[in-house]
Amino acid sequence: MFNKILIANRGEIAVRVIRACREIGIETVAVYSEADREALHVSMADEAVCIGPAKAGESYLNMENIISATVLTGAQAVHPGFGFLSENSKFAQMCRECNITFIGPDVETIENMGNKSKAREIMIKAGVPVTPGSEGNIENLEEALVEAEGIGYPVMIKASAGGGGRGIRIAKDKDEVIKVFDTAKREAKGAFGDDSMYMERFIENPRHIEFQILGDNYGNVIHLGERDCSIQRRNQKVLEETPCPIMNEKLRKTMGEVAIKAAKAVNYKGAGTIEFLVDNKGNFYFMEMNTRIQVEHPVTEMVTGIDLVKEQIKIAAGKELNITQDDIKINGHSIECRINAENPEKGFMPSPGTMIVTHIPGGSGIRIDSAIYQGYKMPPHYDSMIAKLIVHGKDRDEAVSKMKRALEEFILEGIDTNIDFQLQILNNNVFKKGAYNTGFIKKEFKY
Amino acid sequence: MFNKILIANRGEIAVRVIRACREIGIETVAVYSEADREALHVSMADEAVCIGPAKAGESYLNMENIISATVLTGAQAVHPGFGFLSENSKFAQMCRECNITFIGPDVETIENMGNKSKAREIMIKAGVPVTPGSEGNIENLEEALVEAEGIGYPVMIKASAGGGGRGIRIAKDKDEVIKVFDTAKREAKGAFGDDSMYMERFIENPRHIEFQILGDNYGNVIHLGERDCSIQRRNQKVLEETPCPIMNEKLRKTMGEVAIKAAKAVNYKGAGTIEFLVDNKGNFYFMEMNTRIQVEHPVTEMVTGIDLVKEQIKIAAGKELNITQDDIKINGHSIECRINAENPEKGFMPSPGTMIVTHIPGGSGIRIDSAIYQGYKMPPHYDSMIAKLIVHGKDRDEAVSKMKRALEEFILEGIDTNIDFQLQILNNNVFKKGAYNTGFIKKEFKY
Repeated sequence: MFNKILIANRGEIAVRVIRACREIGIETVAVYSEADREALHVSMADEAVCIGPAKAGESYLNMENIISATVLTGAQAVHPGFGFLSENSKFAQMCRECNITFIGPDVETIENMGNKSKAREIMIKAGVPVTPGSEGNIENLEEALVEAEGIGYPVMIKASAGGGGRGIRIAKDKDEVIKVFDTAKREAKGAFGDDSMYMERFIENPRHIEFQILGDNYGNVIHLGERDCSIQRRNQKVLEETPCPIMNEKLRKTMGEVAIKAAKAVNYKGAGTIEFLVDNKGNFYFMEMNTRIQVEHPVTEMVTGIDLVKEQIKIAAGKELNITQDDIKINGHSIECRINAENPEKGFMPSPGTMIVTHIPGGSGIRIDSAIYQGYKMPPHYDSMIAKLIVHGKDRDEAVSKMKRALEEFILEGIDTNIDFQLQILNNNVFKKGAYNTGFIKKEFKY
Repeated sequence: MFNKILIANRGEIAVRVIRACREIGIETVAVYSEADREALHVSMADEAVCIGPAKAGESYLNMENIISATVLTGAQAVHPGFGFLSENSKFAQMCRECNITFIGPDVETIENMGNKSKAREIMIKAGVPVTPGSEGNIENLEEALVEAEGIGYPVMIKASAGGGGRGIRIAKDKDEVIKVFDTAKREAKGAFGDDSMYMERFIENPRHIEFQILGDNYGNVIHLGERDCSIQRRNQKVLEETPCPIMNEKLRKTMGEVAIKAAKAVNYKGAGTIEFLVDNKGNFYFMEMNTRIQVEHPVTEMVTGIDLVKEQIKIAAGKELNITQDDIKINGHSIECRINAENPEKGFMPSPGTMIVTHIPGGSGIRIDSAIYQGYKMPPHYDSMIAKLIVHGKDRDEAVSKMKRALEEFILEGIDTNIDFQLQILNNNVFKKGAYNTGFIKKEFKY
């Protein structure tokens, strides 16, 4: 097992990883930008290294500085968390070259799954259902128009290097393709440094259902059930739950087996997620694979009792998975609400600031993953998510009622939050019935 | 089901009950003393009624005022929590006469189990093993000396109306009985308003192992496994865990069946606890029955997934228990640390004050039951317990490591606490091996 791990991230996921390390008895190294000197992950880690200015590109995305910090502190492994460098194959490659264990899958897996059109190709080859779409990248508008005709409108034009809902345009007809294609390509270049595009049939208002995977270095792959992440605003997840309200044992088995097939197709090692779109007829299609821990991983932990971050670390250290598919029992129901520093009434404008009063809900079945503390001055440079509130109940009804009372207990003064908005979601009748899809927030709240 | 419940308590247990009610959809009424105007339970309840001055005798023990508050607010039931009026049969009787449901067992059960010598008699009759001891009350010193000879030294002289470790004296020989008997009797009178005494063989340094019971109005009784509460300082529990480190399936089955027998002997309704002493040969003896929810109930909830407070409420509302003995599965391991405002280095002197900074641990497997908040001014009038930190791990090792990291995260500035002392317990080798008994703290820490 490792003696020391460097966590190449910030915020609640850095705290999450530090906690797991502490429980296993591994020393931790935090890295931080100049804006994060007072951040919780810095004070919780055994050591901390400043890696640059506030701007992520100069600190949390600064591969050289992070590798230097790792070598300097003698950490044997790097946990990348999510976002930042977590799906950057170049960084994984640098770790490999420096004899540092990157806690995640192989460089090749990250690379292949990071390119969304390449991922499609691999999945098609492996017999995993994908939405009708282009084979390989689309070079220009002319090609785009030909492909769109073949696929059938509406289509989604996606950045190959995108992911997490970013870099996506929808076109209902030829005119719209003409209108958006070049802009989308330019934006992809700006956002991901790569303007490769591909195209898929647009499935209107599907459910977003993803499967959690664990694979080790010895070919063992299991799935830990699904998460329904359909409650999204502009392709960003807002609330996640497991089990999915429309899931049944048969569909879980079928989709779970496909998810394992997808993971095996890329020789997957570590914790990963296979995201599917499910249409209103119950057909499911591979959307993408995330080769890292997800924000919403705690709901899976709540119903399976398995600590995914500890499993990531053990697998990276070369241990064989000691859980079989039969060991996975889904117990009760779990929901996660992402608590963001933002103002829903002002177009969800980020609201960084000082947390003058913090009162965290407690009691039975409540879990809080956050990096906030009383007096914490949240810097404006990063993501607006400040906490994850996760509940576990014996069934969905109990989980919903628990989440409501926990949100009502949650007090954060000094910043605006989406707590009331989350309560509105939980009180919505379509949500209560579990009959939602990715169009839910737009339809019900006009956001 | 009830529409409205009054909670005749304060602190974290009042908050605990309010949370359960909110999750079921029952309105809540808090009661508070003048010293508790700013208490968390007051702000969390739907309604709140002041019931008198700070002194518990004039507020939280003021039966007339509490009954008035119940009638006034139209609450149909009273949840007594623990301590205060929770085991007061007179109060339960008053509720009955006023057509208010007392959330607990029948008046007669409370009365019989509240009198510790009567309880012994009933248990002997039911075939439940008890320590050798006096039959019925001991009236005077002469009788005490005769009984002690028959039982065999050392003996424990106990107040019949005592409980929770209070009102107990140990005598190693005749001289010591002479020395302590009359004082103990006078103290019992002062503390419990009742100077009835009884006597038992003193088992030196036993383990304190208790079984959680649930019984309904239809004769169904189940047990939810044991809790080891041997980590005590001066007969007050400090840290509790389940499963008990020395428990095995066979002993659990045997003791569980005896616990059910004990509960059935008094027609038990609601949540109750059968406390046993276990000697170093594995013999177990009934010690007492607590006819209320226990401070340490969350550890049982963590490993069984059953919400004991919700069960109490459902049973009191006349619902049949929908859990059978076979449904009870012990999953993983749970530990509770009682966090007290006290200074271990100054003889555990209570340390009330203002909580200037509060930072509560979070993450996977952590539960906090407390009534504190940032800026809370803790009144000096009541119990020094300010929070319960409860963890759940897949096994004892994980639970211990989780508790350690959670205690290390816990920050309370403005008051002294026993957090460091709890860490010392967890780091102690005897504790690590699970080889402790009720003499542990005295032996290992000289407290």
